Amino acid sequence: MFLKDYWYVAAWSDELGKSPLAVTMLKQPIVLFRSADGTPVALEDRCIHRRAPLSIGNVVGDDIQCAYHGLVFDAGGKCVKIPGQEQIPRNAFVRSYPVVERHGCVWVWMGERERADPAGIPNFQWLDKAGWSVTKRHANIRCEYRLIIDNLLDLSHLAFVHSSTVGQSQVADIADVKTERRRNSVRVTRWTLNVPPARTYLQFGGYTGNIDRWQISEFSPPSSFIIDNGSAASGTGAPEGKPGEQRWGFIVCHGITPETETTTNYFWALAHEAFTEDLAAIEEFHRQSQHVIGEDIAVFIAQQRIIDLDPDAPTVDIRYDAGPLQARRVIDQLLAAQSAGERAAS
Amino acid sequence: MFLKDYWYVAAWSDELGKSPLAVTMLKQPIVLFRSADGTPVALEDRCIHRRAPLSIGNVVGDDIQCAYHGLVFDAGGKCVKIPGQEQIPRNAFVRSYPVVERHGCVWVWMGERERADPAGIPNFQWLDKAGWSVTKRHANIRCEYRLIIDNLLDLSHLAFVHSSTVGQSQVADIADVKTERRRNSVRVTRWTLNVPPARTYLQFGGYTGNIDRWQISEFSPPSSFIIDNGSAASGTGAPEGKPGEQRWGFIVCHGITPETETTTNYFWALAHEAFTEDLAAIEEFHRQSQHVIGEDIAVFIAQQRIIDLDPDAPTVDIRYDAGPLQARRVIDQLLAAQSAGERAAS
Amino acid sequence: MFLKDYWYVAAWSDELGKSPLAVTMLKQPIVLFRSADGTPVALEDRCIHRRAPLSIGNVVGDDIQCAYHGLVFDAGGKCVKIPGQEQIPRNAFVRSYPVVERHGCVWVWMGERERADPAGIPNFQWLDKAGWSVTKRHANIRCEYRLIIDNLLDLSHLAFVHSSTVGQSQVADIADVKTERRRNSVRVTRWTLNVPPARTYLQFGGYTGNIDRWQISEFSPPSSFIIDNGSAASGTGAPEGKPGEQRWGFIVCHGITPETETTTNYFWALAHEAFTEDLAAIEEFHRQSQHVIGEDIAVFIAQQRIIDLDPDAPTVDIRYDAGPLQARRVIDQLLAAQSAGERAAS
Repeated sequence: MFLKDYWYVAAWSDELGKSPLAVTMLKQPIVLFRSADGTPVALEDRCIHRRAPLSIGNVVGDDIQCAYHGLVFDAGGKCVKIPGQEQIPRNAFVRSYPVVERHGCVWVWMGERERADPAGIPNFQWLDKAGWSVTKRHANIRCEYRLIIDNLLDLSHLAFVHSSTVGQSQVADIADVKTERRRNSVRVTRWTLNVPPARTYLQFGGYTGNIDRWQISEFSPPSSFIIDNGSAASGTGAPEGKPGEQRWGFIVCHGITPETETTTNYFWALAHEAFTEDLAAIEEFHRQSQHVIGEDIAVFIAQQRIIDLDPDAPTVDIRYDAGPLQARRVIDQLLAAQSAGERAAS
Repeated sequence: MFLKDYWYVAAWSDELGKSPLAVTMLKQPIVLFRSADGTPVALEDRCIHRRAPLSIGNVVGDDIQCAYHGLVFDAGGKCVKIPGQEQIPRNAFVRSYPVVERHGCVWVWMGERERADPAGIPNFQWLDKAGWSVTKRHANIRCEYRLIIDNLLDLSHLAFVHSSTVGQSQVADIADVKTERRRNSVRVTRWTLNVPPARTYLQFGGYTGNIDRWQISEFSPPSSFIIDNGSAASGTGAPEGKPGEQRWGFIVCHGITPETETTTNYFWALAHEAFTEDLAAIEEFHRQSQHVIGEDIAVFIAQQRIIDLDPDAPTVDIRYDAGPLQARRVIDQLLAAQSAGERAAS
Repeated sequence: MFLKDYWYVAAWSDELGKSPLAVTMLKQPIVLFRSADGTPVALEDRCIHRRAPLSIGNVVGDDIQCAYHGLVFDAGGKCVKIPGQEQIPRNAFVRSYPVVERHGCVWVWMGERERADPAGIPNFQWLDKAGWSVTKRHANIRCEYRLIIDNLLDLSHLAFVHSSTVGQSQVADIADVKTERRRNSVRVTRWTLNVPPARTYLQFGGYTGNIDRWQISEFSPPSSFIIDNGSAASGTGAPEGKPGEQRWGFIVCHGITPETETTTNYFWALAHEAFTEDLAAIEEFHRQSQHVIGEDIAVFIAQQRIIDLDPDAPTVDIRYDAGPLQARRVIDQLLAAQSAGERAAS
């Protein structure tokens, strides 16, 4: 079961060009395309006639034409042309989905149209901010989407999974971790004080002494994250709320879109203010940082393989699971409310 | 559920050489081989001893010998030798299937042997007709076999799927389509009058002016087709039953053999009278025409993927579906009769 | 259902080096690793925390550390460290399996620890015997493990599957076969007297005349075999228990470890006393002999494909099945006893 009344990342803006793009979200086949003025459209990717996917068809003006028998559907999903006949049956339509393109992301609303409020879209403002460097990535992963949520709310794993770049043992051993649950979101703040910089921080932050580093991971249901990774010279006041000296860091925005119960489209983007004029260095920083997520993905796939062998094997929680457990609770409560609403409506 | 008391194409004659050939028809493993005089034999491809497929064995005279422990079966499926013992148990046999080789096709009867009447074999007479050019193809496709039937009874799809070769928009827009149901067969006749020739017709038909073109698709259950694709100079009487001038066209014979519920072995052959002495031109015509079916296959696979996601998604029929719907009705009625017969027999 | 209270081959000794090795036995994920002094350890390959496989982690001294959040488990499966917290929950452990390394094999006990008696380990003494040549192989095969047992207790198949090397028709046609069932083991002795040597025997046995050959296949449940393949110059007394002249042969030890109901890890090793100083000849003999099992594996995969199509298709037994049928009976009786024991215990 998935949370429906939410905006999910369907694609990065630059993944959606002139051709239709097939995506599967929450087990539903969806075709994305741009109408003549570039506005993104999301329709059910299943011609109402003989169920060919519209995504193998062609965009014609603001409409999309099925590749098989030429039926044409407008951006609202209404069939507006059937070759060889004048009359168009009333039930000749496909579902259309509300779409908003914002900060370089194409967001699709998977619930009831009348409840689609763009105010609920996660604020990935850094992804098109003037002067910021941004790289975006997208992977289709054989894992349940909640494994990724677990990962991003317990960043102690940097000490092990990412020990060669952004991680260091102190992030797990001596960090001060605070978990806050607001009504529906969860924030985990992790401070690691007075430690030598990890390799990436040393290489690009230009530190010569110890640093204070923080990771603030903000989860919004169903599955988006904004993670602020920062650092400053140790003892210059960052933990007390001052800017701190030699401040260096980056933001990562994550959109996690379930494809099926056991596959997920994972979108993530790295963004930071310019910290050097050395473009090769920035490129190397991005390469190194994006590599980090590849290390995580290998873990997700491995976990899912083990889970599939025995989905009911017991688990034990540890102290750092406070954040992940809160997020699971949020999702479970929202799913229960969704089911109750559906029962009431039927 | 499949129709059983029918002849299905198991292989093209030239696919069956000296070695045993494994095929799966209606979910049943079958081994084809030729006895010493070349007569095709079809047996259950499962040694009665330890269930090794006989198709990995060897033809010995008129018999086939299992590769594993050397049991020998004759063309009737009877075990005639068990190495190391004299006596052969009475139940040591595998099912044998009636086979007829005709017009370059190996037809296998999938029902009760006593009802196997070769008169029911579709008449693919063009495939070995003197002076005709023929090419045959065979593809294993991940789709339910009825998707191919839909395709071949609504040739308006040429306007979209095959627009670069044999198709043109008028085939869908202005065609005059007549559907005739005989007792068990369905014929769809489509005339498109006074139109410029589509690319293939222009290139090989040698037309300089408009043409009248016809497509006559004849379906016989469970799943064979003879399609007459013809054309003549417009206004020379073809629609009225005269030969027409500058007449040009070709026949395609299709045999569609379900392998499982969602996979199909699709056999099709292009045949035509010689229309030029330029062999390279004929070769190019065949290449172009066979490519057409590849375009269809891409659609079948795409449809099946979407159907698998939600087999119960609704569909809407259009005017051109009269033929496909009649064929489905024929199949459904025959399946119902088959079930009734099986219930009565048990 | 699998037999549990038994030792199974988990790996050849030389497959288990310094890195953790993931294996799946009886559907259970297991990680093998060596503690600091080289002793093999077998643990459940599923971190109790978030179910990452421990096999993607690292060996640290005598322990293994999870790659994800750094939990450390000792050789007994007890969690001995959780980064970031002092206290370790009592239920933070993974299953540990008794392991014995003997004669170049790593044996894992899949049942209750208290019943693990190393005296029950099959005696593969030839695999590390001074002066013997040994090669070991291991394949993961898509077949049910009992298909391999059938194969090794009816060596008449050499006449067909291995006719180009160790087989000859007489092994099936004229062999004298005796099947003995002891309490739980089954021995099939096959003598083929006064026959020309099969290719491999001719090439490496150096025979100039006929031979007497024997194959003694000894099965111990659940799934191990010691097969003595021997020969001697015909008429020199081998069948009567004398050594025989020009004696030549080899031993093959087999360990067959079910991975799932339809996949199996198959371990086999060829061993023989030196019969020549020509190392290239010995190498060629091993190459030829190991190739033989590849021929069997092709049959297993083919059988399983046919079985999957219709698991209930009938079979017929032949005379040579006495051995395989006894082995099946042994396994079925032991499985029934195991189930009865489990019911009594619950």
